[in-house]
Amino acid sequence: MSFDDQPHRRFNPLNGQWVLVSPHRAKRPWQGQQDAPDNSERPAYDAGCYLCPGNERVGGVANPDYADVFVFDNDFAALMPGKDAPQPPGNPLFQAAPANGTCRVICFSPDHGKSLPELDVTAIRRVVDVWAAQEEELAQGHAYVQIFENKGAMMGCSSPHPHGQIWATNHVPVEPFQENITQLQWFEEHEASMLLAYAEAERADGSRTVVANDHWLAVVPYWASWPFEVLLLPLFAAASFSQVNNERRDALADILKAITTAYDNLFQTSFPYSMGWHGAPSAERNAPHWQLHAHFYPPLLRSASVRKFMVGYEMLAEAQRDLTPETAAAQLRAQSPIHYRSAP
Amino acid sequence: MSFDDQPHRRFNPLNGQWVLVSPHRAKRPWQGQQDAPDNSERPAYDAGCYLCPGNERVGGVANPDYADVFVFDNDFAALMPGKDAPQPPGNPLFQAAPANGTCRVICFSPDHGKSLPELDVTAIRRVVDVWAAQEEELAQGHAYVQIFENKGAMMGCSSPHPHGQIWATNHVPVEPFQENITQLQWFEEHEASMLLAYAEAERADGSRTVVANDHWLAVVPYWASWPFEVLLLPLFAAASFSQVNNERRDALADILKAITTAYDNLFQTSFPYSMGWHGAPSAERNAPHWQLHAHFYPPLLRSASVRKFMVGYEMLAEAQRDLTPETAAAQLRAQSPIHYRSAP
Ligand SMILES: O=P(O)(O)O[C@H]1O[C@H](CO)[C@@H](O)[C@H](O)[C@H]1O
Ligand SMILES: O=P(O)(O)O[C@H]1O[C@H](CO)[C@@H](O)[C@H](O)[C@H]1O
Repeated sequence: MSFDDQPHRRFNPLNGQWVLVSPHRAKRPWQGQQDAPDNSERPAYDAGCYLCPGNERVGGVANPDYADVFVFDNDFAALMPGKDAPQPPGNPLFQAAPANGTCRVICFSPDHGKSLPELDVTAIRRVVDVWAAQEEELAQGHAYVQIFENKGAMMGCSSPHPHGQIWATNHVPVEPFQENITQLQWFEEHEASMLLAYAEAERADGSRTVVANDHWLAVVPYWASWPFEVLLLPLFAAASFSQVNNERRDALADILKAITTAYDNLFQTSFPYSMGWHGAPSAERNAPHWQLHAHFYPPLLRSASVRKFMVGYEMLAEAQRDLTPETAAAQLRAQSPIHYRSAP
Repeated sequence: MSFDDQPHRRFNPLNGQWVLVSPHRAKRPWQGQQDAPDNSERPAYDAGCYLCPGNERVGGVANPDYADVFVFDNDFAALMPGKDAPQPPGNPLFQAAPANGTCRVICFSPDHGKSLPELDVTAIRRVVDVWAAQEEELAQGHAYVQIFENKGAMMGCSSPHPHGQIWATNHVPVEPFQENITQLQWFEEHEASMLLAYAEAERADGSRTVVANDHWLAVVPYWASWPFEVLLLPLFAAASFSQVNNERRDALADILKAITTAYDNLFQTSFPYSMGWHGAPSAERNAPHWQLHAHFYPPLLRSASVRKFMVGYEMLAEAQRDLTPETAAAQLRAQSPIHYRSAP
C-alpha cells in the first residue's frame, strides 16, 4: 500500500507518538494570517542591540568587545542557580517540585547581520566548540544541559542578533527524559543504538536525505511533524559532544552551514526555526543507547509568509502535517548550496 | 515551601508531563514580535466570506440560507471517509498506518460579526446541542470524535466567520489516548474519577477558579502551560455530551459565555485561542473513569499584541510559563461579566 497521496499516520519511535499525514492538504486556499518575512539587510553593528560587542545590556552590564563567540548568563533567566530541596510527597493532583538551573546566552559572532548560514565554516566550527565546552562545564552540577536556538521573530526570538541559548537544569526535562526511555528500551531489545540504526537505514534509502557527509546525515525524519523539520544525526556512535573529535566537528560545521543554507534558499528568506541538541543526560554521557542529535523545527509551510499552525487538532488530538516528509526532503535537496544572498 | 515567586515545576496528571513555572519572567523587556490585535468591527454579513449564509464556498457549493447553527463536510478535509485496512507489521523505525475519518465545519451562527461571547446564551445553547448531536452521530463508525475551535488569525483560523470544526477518526488520537490511560489508572487506584476529584478540590480551594456555576467549573489548572489556559470541568459525572441533560446544557452555555467574555475583556480584544472537547472514546462513552472536559489554549501573554511563544526550550525540553496559574486566574476573575464591546 502506498501512502504517497492518502492520509495516514506515522510513528515517532523517539517520543512514542503518532503524526497524522495529509499529503494533499497544502493545496487548499489560504485566507488566514500572513506573517512578515524577514528579509531585512542588517548592518554588521547596531548601536541599539543588547548583544552587539561593547553595547550595554538591559541590566546595565556592558558586553566586552568580543571577537568571535561570546557567552554570558541570561539577564532574565527562567531558572536560578541553586540546589533542589527534596519535596515531601503531597496531593497527587497538586504536585510541585523545585527547579533550579543556569540560563546562558551564546552570541554566535560579533556580526549583527549574519546568521549561521552566512558565517563561514571556521566561524561555525567555533560555535560547535563552544557548545561542546558549555556542555562539558554545565554537565558538572546539572542533570541536563539543553542547548538551543530560536531564530526569527516568528519563533519568539527577542533579538535579531544571531544567538542561541543554554538552559541547564537539576532535573532531566520531559522531552529528553522520554527520549532516554525510548532509546534505552530499543538498545535493550536490539543490542544496538536506535538512532545509529535509523541513520544507516536513511542513508541507504536516500529519499528523506537533505544533505550528508562522511560523518553526519540530515534527514526530514519519517515521522516529522513540522513541514520542513530536520533531524541531524551522527553516522558514528556519540552520546554527547565530548565524543565528537576534531575532524567530526569540522564536518558538523560543514553540514550545519548546508542545512541552514538550504533552509534560507527554499523561500528566499531568513528561515525561522527553533533548533536544539539532545545529548545524553549528564549522568550517562557515554551511554551506548544514546545518540547525540539535533532537531530543527521550522514553522514555514508554503512561502516566507505562510506558516503551519499547530493549533486546535494538533494541540488537542495529534500533530498533523500537510505534505509528506519525502516531498519536503526533495524540495530542500533541490536547493543550491550557495546562499541566495551571496549568489552573484 | 512557597512557590509563588520562585521557579518550580508542576505535574499534569492528565497527560503525565511536567511544566516549568518561572513566576517573574513576564517582567523581562520585550523587543520581539508584536502581533496585530483583532479589534476589527465585522459586519453581520460579508459577501466575500465562504461561511456566510447563501454565499458560495471555494469548491463551488453554495451555503443554505441558514438561521442558526450550520454544519457541513470540510471542503479541504485532512481525512477521507473509509475503513482503515489492517497493515502488516513492518520495520519498527518506519511504521505507518492508514487514517480515515470525517472532517466537518460548524458555523456557530449566521452572524459574521459575532464570536461566542457576543452571542446570547440561547444561541450558545444551540451550539452545545449541535456538538452533542454531532458527537452522537459520529461516534457511530468512528473511534474518536474531536470537536474544536481555532479562534483568531493568530491561531491559524482561516476565516473570521465564527466557526469550529470536528475531525472524527477511526483511531483514538495521541492526546485523548493518553488521557484515557491516566484517567483509567487513577480510577483503578482510587475508585473515583480523577477529574471529578480535581474539580471538587479546586472548587473548595478557589484560588484558580475563573468562574463557576451549579454544574460547571472553569479553572486555570494547577499545571497550565499556556499563560491563560482554562480547563472547563463538569461538577457531575459525565463521560460524553450524551450524559449532559438539558439543565446542565443551559448551565454550560452560561459558563461558555462567561469564560469567553472574561477572555475578551482581559486585553480588550477578540481573544484568540484553540479550544476543544475531550469526551470519552466512542467505545467507552459511559465509562466511569472518563470525565468530559474542554481545554482552552490561548496564546496571549502580556497584551493584545504580545503572545507567549512555545518555542526552543518548550519544544525541545519542556513547557514553560512566565506567571503562576494563580496570578492568571485572579486576573481573569477580576474581569467584568459584561463584554467590553457591549458595555455602555
Ligand atoms: O482547517 P483550517 O481552519 O483551515 O486550518 C487550521 O486548523 C487545522 C486544525 O487544527 C490546522 O491543521 C491548520 O494548520 C490550521 O490552519
Ligand atoms: O529567552 P527569550 O529568547 O527572550 O525567549 C524566547 O525563548 C524562550 C525559550 O524557548 C521562550 O520561553 C520564550 O517564550 C521566547 O520568547
